[in-house]
Amino acid sequence: MPHDAALAELTTFLGDRLARSKPERASHARNETWFPEALPDAVAYPETTEEVARIVATCARHGCPVTAWGTGTSLEGHALAIRGGVSLDLTQMNRVLEVRAEDMQAVVQPGVTREALNTELRATGLMFPVDPGADASLGGMAATRASGTTAVRYGTMRDNVMALEVVLADGRVIRTGSGARKSSAGYDLTGLFVGSEGTLGIITELTLKLHGQPEAISAAVCAFDTFDAAVMTVIATIQMGIPMARIEFVDETTAAIFNAANGTQLPEKPHLMVEFHGSDTSAAEDARRFGEVVAEMGGGHFDWATTTEDRNRLWKMRHGAYPACIASRPGCMGLVTDMCVPSSRLAEAVRETRADITASGIPGPILGHVGDGNFHAILLIDRGNPEELKTAKALAHRMAERALRLGGTITGEHGVGMGKKDLMAMEHGEAWEVMARIKRALDPDGILNPGKVVEVNQ
Amino acid sequence: MPHDAALAELTTFLGDRLARSKPERASHARNETWFPEALPDAVAYPETTEEVARIVATCARHGCPVTAWGTGTSLEGHALAIRGGVSLDLTQMNRVLEVRAEDMQAVVQPGVTREALNTELRATGLMFPVDPGADASLGGMAATRASGTTAVRYGTMRDNVMALEVVLADGRVIRTGSGARKSSAGYDLTGLFVGSEGTLGIITELTLKLHGQPEAISAAVCAFDTFDAAVMTVIATIQMGIPMARIEFVDETTAAIFNAANGTQLPEKPHLMVEFHGSDTSAAEDARRFGEVVAEMGGGHFDWATTTEDRNRLWKMRHGAYPACIASRPGCMGLVTDMCVPSSRLAEAVRETRADITASGIPGPILGHVGDGNFHAILLIDRGNPEELKTAKALAHRMAERALRLGGTITGEHGVGMGKKDLMAMEHGEAWEVMARIKRALDPDGILNPGKVVEVNQ
Repeated sequence: MPHDAALAELTTFLGDRLARSKPERASHARNETWFPEALPDAVAYPETTEEVARIVATCARHGCPVTAWGTGTSLEGHALAIRGGVSLDLTQMNRVLEVRAEDMQAVVQPGVTREALNTELRATGLMFPVDPGADASLGGMAATRASGTTAVRYGTMRDNVMALEVVLADGRVIRTGSGARKSSAGYDLTGLFVGSEGTLGIITELTLKLHGQPEAISAAVCAFDTFDAAVMTVIATIQMGIPMARIEFVDETTAAIFNAANGTQLPEKPHLMVEFHGSDTSAAEDARRFGEVVAEMGGGHFDWATTTEDRNRLWKMRHGAYPACIASRPGCMGLVTDMCVPSSRLAEAVRETRADITASGIPGPILGHVGDGNFHAILLIDRGNPEELKTAKALAHRMAERALRLGGTITGEHGVGMGKKDLMAMEHGEAWEVMARIKRALDPDGILNPGKVVEVNQ
Repeated sequence: MPHDAALAELTTFLGDRLARSKPERASHARNETWFPEALPDAVAYPETTEEVARIVATCARHGCPVTAWGTGTSLEGHALAIRGGVSLDLTQMNRVLEVRAEDMQAVVQPGVTREALNTELRATGLMFPVDPGADASLGGMAATRASGTTAVRYGTMRDNVMALEVVLADGRVIRTGSGARKSSAGYDLTGLFVGSEGTLGIITELTLKLHGQPEAISAAVCAFDTFDAAVMTVIATIQMGIPMARIEFVDETTAAIFNAANGTQLPEKPHLMVEFHGSDTSAAEDARRFGEVVAEMGGGHFDWATTTEDRNRLWKMRHGAYPACIASRPGCMGLVTDMCVPSSRLAEAVRETRADITASGIPGPILGHVGDGNFHAILLIDRGNPEELKTAKALAHRMAERALRLGGTITGEHGVGMGKKDLMAMEHGEAWEVMARIKRALDPDGILNPGKVVEVNQ
């Protein structure tokens, strides 16, 4: 077996927390989308930063790859150990180390999930708002620079990670950032590790920015006759500076899938799902102003979710979109695209994408975080039909080209992983080579999540 | 003369836009604080990205240092060519290239100043809010990760630079970021170049995030009997989530200096200067809630600046603090410190600093952007007295130690330059060496602003 020497040495200090059984390796070989399984040689379950450092240092000495694993919910194959080696499962490092309520900060280990943190925060009046849908680990969310439905108001992980502890490729441990709200003390290493997908270091601790739980929340869903009207509503709302906490678009296909999965009776039309956070006065005022925009754009009736239960049901439906889409076509797997464009180009981006998908014959509901100009098509591919995968990949490639033509990015929030690597040169040109130089500088032997984000041998 | 070959070659394509006269070199040898003059061998005035690229490529071939120059208003000697070579003056690249009002973005050349941009934006209903006081160039503000009075509401340059064009150390030109509001397409190079102080590349174009001009603005100044009461007011205001656009602290010494410089009659007590942005309703509501906090903390009477003129006068006074302080002690020069700590530690940080300065006998007004936990002491040193400079440096060193002990950073917004380099290891430990590795990877011959931020030979 490859990497036997490294694994034998790891066993000496991890004991049975280095798992080499087929089922445990297999549970770390899966992913949520279409990427083929990739078996690691072993799964390590460290409990402390010191153990992570020792694992990485040991692997570095033996040239054994180390690929971090959080909840395995990412969508571009980030956590797959495609070159074998160790799957570094951080779920045992799942303690909230400190809540500094006065400073609105929390210090957590990487295996804490966002829901676990929010449960712990409930009594403090604070919350961690970044919400990619899945109950992902905060380390994984930082590593992929996740965002989701609330980014339009609270920003992405880039904006909400203040400081990190990171194990470098040689096993040394560094700290980046501080508890200060801002700093100009040199290169922004925190920002560099956020979004580096485990290729530059292993995040072993995060200091996160917290936000006050809003005094009042109002949410609503509203149908539109055309998606242009829905998109124009989004743009006008942003320009008027109405502070939305969420503003989500779902197309008519998604609305039908929601009805099938949840027993709802949404009209089969494009919808916006919105939420406002504020004081009683301001949330009501924001909702009223938004209502005026909707009326002006010819939007339909608002269905307000006034109780917490109604609101939870609404967002549970939204968060359940991916499994609902998968369930809507038996035997299918999903290929999820992730364009993000400037708001002014959003309407044409969605329109062209809709037409392209429809022409392809592959079912592809469209939905997204349109307040950020970010939307996804969930391409539902017959597992047994390689032609469909090929068609879907071609669609995804054209979407990436479209995103760039319209001044945007090939991925708003899902990251690069394996899935977008081939598109990176198209987006970044020579800047992609600069990323590779940074990778080589920080991980000269290429042991951290090899094969992702950059091409080190170019 | 050193670098003669490089300079001769630069003259062939820059003509008289490569200045080698003593007066022009001297005008790029000065700085706003206590650093000794540092004469560059020549000053280059490029007009296009292509010229910058050619200058850098030429200098790279000859091993000639290149140090970017904006308005020369930075406070840590960033723009001083301390190893000689070329001072790259970007003031001729001063065009606003595009205002994308619909997307709330502007594309500018690096020599555009923040006031010039805001003048250009006036009719659009948009503004660029980052405000470090000086009318600095936007390229320089990005390079030093500047912030200032409005960061508490609108963020720093880190939050407001969306994309960059950068000339690398070998003369290649790359683009980072895009017009999309978010992206997870690989390492955050935009964030890496912002705050890199011209040591990793030369910024030749910036895409900036714009914000709506507020419908209503209200500003006020308010005295407190103790600085503890002022600081507690700030903390309570933040925790209540009252959205301040600015919240500035000035101590009693600064209040006295303001009176002398502006003919005002502020009580010689600690003050807060605040501003609220919003709709007519929300700005009034925010001001009312803030007033309640002030009353609870025992603050004094509010002096509201209701007209635009009054408000401009108020912020002009604040922005004029540095020259007013310098003028308050004839023949002095300033050493400006820049601690930033978590809010919960702000009171003790200011209290200890005040006591330390008072004990030293050096005049040192304290003021700052307390909504961010960031404050400055302006140490007023007799130019002719090297003992005072020594005492001031020791004070600054203790302030840096204090910032770190309290969980903060040695510099909230002024950057590293020459002045803070010796403190970087204390803040970052081994992470400082990671910065050096990045520097070596991107500028292996060390020609870009050598001697700043990192120690490449460690």
